Amino acid sequence: MIRPIQDVDLDRLARLLLGYLVEPANRELGQLIRERGPVSALGSVLAGHASAGLCGAVAARLGAEKITGSARDLSSFADRAETRAARLGIRIITPDDAEWPTQVDDLVRISRPGGLAVDRDTDPPLCLWVRGAMPLNEATERSVAVVGARAETPYGGRLATELAYDLASRQWTIVSGGAFGIDASAHRGALAAGGTTVTVLACGLDRPYPAAHASLFDSIAEHGLLISEWPPGAAPYRQRFLTRNRVIAASTLGTVVVEAGLRSGARHTLGRARLLGRSTMAVPGPVGSAMSAGCHVELRDLGTRLVTSVDEIVEEIGPVGALAPIPRGAERPRDALDPAVARLLDGLLPGPARSAETIAAEVGVSGRDARRGLPLLVAGGFAIQVEGRYRLAPAGRLDEAGGDT
Amino acid sequence: MIRPIQDVDLDRLARLLLGYLVEPANRELGQLIRERGPVSALGSVLAGHASAGLCGAVAARLGAEKITGSARDLSSFADRAETRAARLGIRIITPDDAEWPTQVDDLVRISRPGGLAVDRDTDPPLCLWVRGAMPLNEATERSVAVVGARAETPYGGRLATELAYDLASRQWTIVSGGAFGIDASAHRGALAAGGTTVTVLACGLDRPYPAAHASLFDSIAEHGLLISEWPPGAAPYRQRFLTRNRVIAASTLGTVVVEAGLRSGARHTLGRARLLGRSTMAVPGPVGSAMSAGCHVELRDLGTRLVTSVDEIVEEIGPVGALAPIPRGAERPRDALDPAVARLLDGLLPGPARSAETIAAEVGVSGRDARRGLPLLVAGGFAIQVEGRYRLAPAGRLDEAGGDT
Repeated sequence: MIRPIQDVDLDRLARLLLGYLVEPANRELGQLIRERGPVSALGSVLAGHASAGLCGAVAARLGAEKITGSARDLSSFADRAETRAARLGIRIITPDDAEWPTQVDDLVRISRPGGLAVDRDTDPPLCLWVRGAMPLNEATERSVAVVGARAETPYGGRLATELAYDLASRQWTIVSGGAFGIDASAHRGALAAGGTTVTVLACGLDRPYPAAHASLFDSIAEHGLLISEWPPGAAPYRQRFLTRNRVIAASTLGTVVVEAGLRSGARHTLGRARLLGRSTMAVPGPVGSAMSAGCHVELRDLGTRLVTSVDEIVEEIGPVGALAPIPRGAERPRDALDPAVARLLDGLLPGPARSAETIAAEVGVSGRDARRGLPLLVAGGFAIQVEGRYRLAPAGRLDEAGGDT
Repeated sequence: MIRPIQDVDLDRLARLLLGYLVEPANRELGQLIRERGPVSALGSVLAGHASAGLCGAVAARLGAEKITGSARDLSSFADRAETRAARLGIRIITPDDAEWPTQVDDLVRISRPGGLAVDRDTDPPLCLWVRGAMPLNEATERSVAVVGARAETPYGGRLATELAYDLASRQWTIVSGGAFGIDASAHRGALAAGGTTVTVLACGLDRPYPAAHASLFDSIAEHGLLISEWPPGAAPYRQRFLTRNRVIAASTLGTVVVEAGLRSGARHTLGRARLLGRSTMAVPGPVGSAMSAGCHVELRDLGTRLVTSVDEIVEEIGPVGALAPIPRGAERPRDALDPAVARLLDGLLPGPARSAETIAAEVGVSGRDARRGLPLLVAGGFAIQVEGRYRLAPAGRLDEAGGDT
């Protein structure tokens, strides 16, 4: 059913206002919206027809903004917010917009009462502030989260950059936070490949955090998108990063942790991906590196898949059947030999030629098997026959690197 | 049923002779011995009552040694072999000896026709040549294989040494090959801890291979054991290393690969452990290191367990329930806070004190929740109250490292 334009506008207005008045991910508010729609939900929390905690939080915000809950005040506040956002090059999108990334609504699955995320609310975003030209749904349709420690090592930084570069080169969008370390390295890799990258901030888009990333964020907005659930002006509080992580996990088909300490926001994001049934991946690193310790726990104890290359990441998130080739060493000529014949090769010396019988006794086969097999080694270029005796051909030594490889 | 001494002696003689006459692991011979006993099996292969391949191989060896199959010749050959071994400080043990490591007989499970190991025969050893004072069964009762690449990196060498040192310190015996690289590093770690270590060679114990390890092998024989299925004089052929690997896997409760290239004998040993149902473990390393590539394939695609410490190895091979603690980061004071209260902490500034209402609006809770929660933060030492307003206590900043950890 297509609703009248007016309702959509009111829904959008209500979501925008609720986005200012309530911290994101609130399960109670999400439930109200799903039951009654955004406009009615807004009315309820303004009229005190919801929990004391939720109504009180809304009242506190209204008081701080010095606005009443009257329709005129609210409408004028929303107008100012839209105008201010537009001036900053920021647009506001809601589930009614064509570019809404519908995959984030999967968060409802883990947010319902009795849902899986017990540590905090994980409801889908009410609306998103967006900076950058590309439609958000297109940007994230084929995307993977590449996240990790702020305190990246040179090893981790190089890998994050390379993996993001390779993914972006194959038209995968990178999604990450805006932090120092792995997040920034991943964005830089994607940008270097001329690809699309999306930064999910935990504060207003007008407040680049960390401030040193202001120009990085400008590049990202030019070639990809900056998005946030928080309106302009919102500060980057610690709890907001934890709330934000669910959006990174829900926007993408899978999350790759490149480096993570034992206590790491990246592992929190991976946990959200796991709850959502998205692919969870981690890159191994040197034992003893604190920045790989979190990855190793994930790989050992939490069912996270080990990945070392773009092929292996795409195997997890790509179309079914896109299996990464299992890495194999180079084939060697002797691989093609029948094991019984390969055994004879052990009895050949580079120096003096020996009889088939001597070679048979040496390697423990019958004289007949030796007389049958040695000509095959000659034909294969492994052996040279000299007056009915056999010695190793120069080519046969090529992979005689000893047995204990 | 206790058999007469004489039968045991004859069985031992037959096994010793068969150990000279037939390459180890031969499935057909093992089957004959299980059906008829070693004496009758020896008689069969000497009389040509077995496959042409097996009988011909025995005939070739007899010819090379210039002995007939007569009882007198064989007995005299065996006497000389025993005397020669004794002079070298080597004893010969068979399943009739108390120190026989019965766990190696599990190899029958994968060796039977229709068994799992299809690439070559994997029958249990017929007998073992042993150098060193400790009974072999005691040495290997509580043992773990630590194996890996010859071309170890400094990283892998250090880890092999440390893990073997730690395992040996906890009274675990190390079992490995005698190669350069990881094998030698593991033995050295065990020796440094004053522990027991066992080297399984793929040649005669009188022929140290590689020769540069002669003095290492002397130390191992002094503090542990050198063992082989091949009699003195046997050369270290490539195929013998592959045959030998099953003994390393079968002697131990599990196999740890520390470093391995994609084509690695260590992975072959791990495959044997897998077929036997022993624990299979691998240590991760830097992506991009060729010497960790084999480990990563094992961890990704073959169900090998990732291990980074002795605790994690012991969890795999130790008594049921000896779970390694999952590594955790240090606890921080704010971990103990209720999430709703932790949220208030975000609204406290180190500078000016703010009212409960301002803080409530800032972090998105009700004024009432703020007035209830802020005193808890004061009590916990996170906040300071100044004339009814609140600011961050110096201790509260201790773990204010920002959110995007």
